[in-house]
Amino acid sequence: MESNILNTINSPKDLRTLSENQLPQLAQELRDFIIDIISQKGGHLGASLGVVELTIALHYVFNTPEDQLVWDVGHQAYGHKILTKRKNIFHTNRELNGISGFPKRSESIYDTFGVGHSSTSISAALGMALASQLKKETEKHHIAIIGDASIASGMAFEGLNHAGVTDANLLVILNDNAIGIDPSIGALKNYLTAVKEGKNPKGNNIIKSLNFDYSGPIDGHDLPKLISELNRLKKVKGPKFLHIITTKGKGLQLAEEYQVKYHAPGKFEAKTGKIHPKNEDGLPPKFQDVFGHTLVELAKRNEKIIGITPAMPTGSSMKFMMEEFPERAFDVGIAEQHAVTLAAGMTTQGMIVFCNIYSTFLQRAYDQIIHDVALQKLPVIFCLDRAGLVGEDGATHHGVFDISYLNCIPNLIIFAPINEIELRNIMYTAQLGLDYPIAIRYPRGRGEITTWQEPFQKIKIGDAKCLKKGSEIAFLSTGTIGTNVEKAIIKCNNPDLISHYHFPFIKPIDQKTLAEISTKYKTIITIEDGSIIGGFGSLVNQYITENNIPIKVLNLGIPDQFIEHGSIEELQHICKINVTTIINQLNFLIQS
Amino acid sequence: MESNILNTINSPKDLRTLSENQLPQLAQELRDFIIDIISQKGGHLGASLGVVELTIALHYVFNTPEDQLVWDVGHQAYGHKILTKRKNIFHTNRELNGISGFPKRSESIYDTFGVGHSSTSISAALGMALASQLKKETEKHHIAIIGDASIASGMAFEGLNHAGVTDANLLVILNDNAIGIDPSIGALKNYLTAVKEGKNPKGNNIIKSLNFDYSGPIDGHDLPKLISELNRLKKVKGPKFLHIITTKGKGLQLAEEYQVKYHAPGKFEAKTGKIHPKNEDGLPPKFQDVFGHTLVELAKRNEKIIGITPAMPTGSSMKFMMEEFPERAFDVGIAEQHAVTLAAGMTTQGMIVFCNIYSTFLQRAYDQIIHDVALQKLPVIFCLDRAGLVGEDGATHHGVFDISYLNCIPNLIIFAPINEIELRNIMYTAQLGLDYPIAIRYPRGRGEITTWQEPFQKIKIGDAKCLKKGSEIAFLSTGTIGTNVEKAIIKCNNPDLISHYHFPFIKPIDQKTLAEISTKYKTIITIEDGSIIGGFGSLVNQYITENNIPIKVLNLGIPDQFIEHGSIEELQHICKINVTTIINQLNFLIQS
Repeated sequence: MESNILNTINSPKDLRTLSENQLPQLAQELRDFIIDIISQKGGHLGASLGVVELTIALHYVFNTPEDQLVWDVGHQAYGHKILTKRKNIFHTNRELNGISGFPKRSESIYDTFGVGHSSTSISAALGMALASQLKKETEKHHIAIIGDASIASGMAFEGLNHAGVTDANLLVILNDNAIGIDPSIGALKNYLTAVKEGKNPKGNNIIKSLNFDYSGPIDGHDLPKLISELNRLKKVKGPKFLHIITTKGKGLQLAEEYQVKYHAPGKFEAKTGKIHPKNEDGLPPKFQDVFGHTLVELAKRNEKIIGITPAMPTGSSMKFMMEEFPERAFDVGIAEQHAVTLAAGMTTQGMIVFCNIYSTFLQRAYDQIIHDVALQKLPVIFCLDRAGLVGEDGATHHGVFDISYLNCIPNLIIFAPINEIELRNIMYTAQLGLDYPIAIRYPRGRGEITTWQEPFQKIKIGDAKCLKKGSEIAFLSTGTIGTNVEKAIIKCNNPDLISHYHFPFIKPIDQKTLAEISTKYKTIITIEDGSIIGGFGSLVNQYITENNIPIKVLNLGIPDQFIEHGSIEELQHICKINVTTIINQLNFLIQS
Repeated sequence: MESNILNTINSPKDLRTLSENQLPQLAQELRDFIIDIISQKGGHLGASLGVVELTIALHYVFNTPEDQLVWDVGHQAYGHKILTKRKNIFHTNRELNGISGFPKRSESIYDTFGVGHSSTSISAALGMALASQLKKETEKHHIAIIGDASIASGMAFEGLNHAGVTDANLLVILNDNAIGIDPSIGALKNYLTAVKEGKNPKGNNIIKSLNFDYSGPIDGHDLPKLISELNRLKKVKGPKFLHIITTKGKGLQLAEEYQVKYHAPGKFEAKTGKIHPKNEDGLPPKFQDVFGHTLVELAKRNEKIIGITPAMPTGSSMKFMMEEFPERAFDVGIAEQHAVTLAAGMTTQGMIVFCNIYSTFLQRAYDQIIHDVALQKLPVIFCLDRAGLVGEDGATHHGVFDISYLNCIPNLIIFAPINEIELRNIMYTAQLGLDYPIAIRYPRGRGEITTWQEPFQKIKIGDAKCLKKGSEIAFLSTGTIGTNVEKAIIKCNNPDLISHYHFPFIKPIDQKTLAEISTKYKTIITIEDGSIIGGFGSLVNQYITENNIPIKVLNLGIPDQFIEHGSIEELQHICKINVTTIINQLNFLIQS
């Protein structure tokens, strides 16, 4: 298709020279452009298709970048990126050294606030608005665009609750499509649905009760309506709220029909939206599916087992449990804090709760793990999905801090399986009953073992394993990064010199094995798919220094910097934990 | 005063044998009992006085401990403790080995959930209620009692939002007294006030919109009304909400009048409530006041300076800034997540934001520090009040994890002053403009320097200082615990052997000084008022092991266990970081 108008648009300034009746065509072209690139490159599709009209209307009505847009989560911001000087590099989206899949301050002046995790936009935009007020920039507008799944998270409520008692020039736009990555849930969502359906008494609603000037709901795909309403709101002072209704995946029929699948569909046929099924026969399973199927298997035998996910039933594969035991599986929405304390409450009543949260999102529930779980020794079973480097989602999403932030919590067991079987077996072991909570961390994506559905075996708490014996160097790994070590040892110049120990338990760390190791070798290398500072290696260091053992320790892992987006292999290379770098490291040590 | 009825009550079972018309007298006696003990021993007064009638009514109507009460925060639970078998040990409240100032599972079966931090009660009680539902315990009641300050926190909203789509047998009681520790703020609070004053349209409110059966507001000091309403609600299935109005400090005139002061007034005259002014002349200032006054001093010179506190204007001394520059100081309520991201938003606009949060409560905003601040290198200035052991508030409130959980965050400067002057100077230095965010941690209570209002001096980022030279042992401290080291060195058997280095910067750690130290001494001791795992000492260990330096390192700090309540000196003794234990440690090393 020929892009007549989009070709002429480099920045919002160009956009604002168009006449209003050219905008629907631009919307079509922008949609096609997004579909065209994403179909070839992958990325987040549905959310951006849903806000094409809103994106155009916002940049048309407001004087960006002077006026400031904050996109919540940000995977809906592809149209925004394309209209703000990044059309020609949009094909590098999510690639190493390419543009980020999320708005990012260092990338563009139009990206006023870096996002990735949900529900931050109201707080950030309110901060900007209050600053503008102090600077007497009275004509400046600050706009948070937030979805109905994100606004139900506690942090967003905190932002609304504060904004309502200010007279800040803040516009919150609720992009209500009744879905996050999975369908939205919660009482607020039901309430918003009632509002949409006209079932809410006129003149009174939650948002008005919080002292916002509320308008809507209006059709978020109707450009003239959007533009006229935004122009009206421009003149309204103080906190205001526009409720718009959109369809996720708008404009691509299959994406509208299968909204969960087309959130981030991978590659597809641009014209039809069809996804060609990949041949996955014989591939090892995803860790997510190992978790999901194993949970169902265990739940069939043990009726006390419960599953909790904060808004990630599909991504975590908790959906299998939700299908099989709907009354024992809870999607609580984007509410990590609540998820953890809910799990704690259930555990006090003798339930065995698997609380599955992505490593990066567990940062949202840090206090709850300490205060509500570990302090009370409640044996909640945390499954930390997407631990370690996650690849294309980049800096906001890597699960690289969990070992460090969990390590200092008393009473907590921390476990990182090397493969699918160990994940299964620790899940089995945990539900047999532990005296302490446990955090089980595993990565995004596939393992390496196809025959993973072996009979369950109980794991002894605290034991490390020697996977390979050698004479000079002890390589201590935790988690799946250990498979890189296995491959590197085989390929290095003298495998006989290298021992490989796998420490599935980061905490309690196996002191006995450490004692053995510290007497046998000249050098220790530790490796983990997580921050070096405060990580697994730091526990090894502490053992060595407090026992005054004259042995060199080299800590491999994520260095003290934020790691950007790229393939996992590329990022492991940057962090010097991929197979090739490990081989080089070993060869250097062997030589010296 | 003679306690006729209270003397006969050991447990709620006894209470339930009373006739309803005996209860007002019991309320009076319970109130007097609380006043009597707290006036002599100190502790949280106002909140417990406010819920005397509610406490009696709950245990009278419900079949505790079968029916489960979850007190939010828990400093209002003194009456509950006294009525549930702890009357005779209530005088040990908050003392070492005495009962905790908060409900605690290990202390009593009536304490269904440990609390201390706010806004957890709805999630915990909902978890219990859902578990009961699965266990077919259909007659069991689960009750969360939460204040109007706590319910405005995001976590509470997450709990309500989930509860509203369940049919769990959950009763949420809103104890609305319009005050937390300081007066409540926010749009929800204004809304609740409108409800109380009858200004909200009948038949519609926020809570009903979230699908709760709402009743109230009713007078929370009217026992017959409370009892009849609770009896009615007992028969209502599904999530329900009772809004009661109480007066904090009820029954003690001065406590009703000065609610902030009488939240935890220290010792006072039981009969009159009078607090005898202490002679504080010549005492060194509290770190809180150093923070508060210095902030005002700096804000007078620099109009870009802003202060943010989540609901702790008095405790943190942010109140001075709020009095002097009300438009530049923000109390955002119990909303740590929002506070941090609001600060980030303001900082993007060039404001210089001092965001003051208690160390233990910053755990609530961990993700925001990583994702919204450090990742974007926004130079927010975090002041972490009550870092380290806090004493009588105990395990829920010690600020002992901050160094460990912050250490792994890239781009973050972590600073711990040894005294008031260094706190002042780092605040001065930070507002001059840093390239990175900074976390400044300092303890609860007084410093040791009375002449602290010296002219400002700029601090060089990253530098450690040698405070005392010796020949054999290098003692490396960070923060105010360094004063214990100073005292211990003087008193040990051979001070000449000991060097003392103060590392105000935990991160970036002074590598140059570490290099010097590692060549000069036989032994290194590190000490910090925080978790040993992942703390300051772990950075020293890492330096030693990666450079393969043959030197023993001993890490002192908080061991890998939760520390209970007691005086700071007592708790430092338990952790082996008080002066006496340090002296013994030094003498042992000197000898050996």
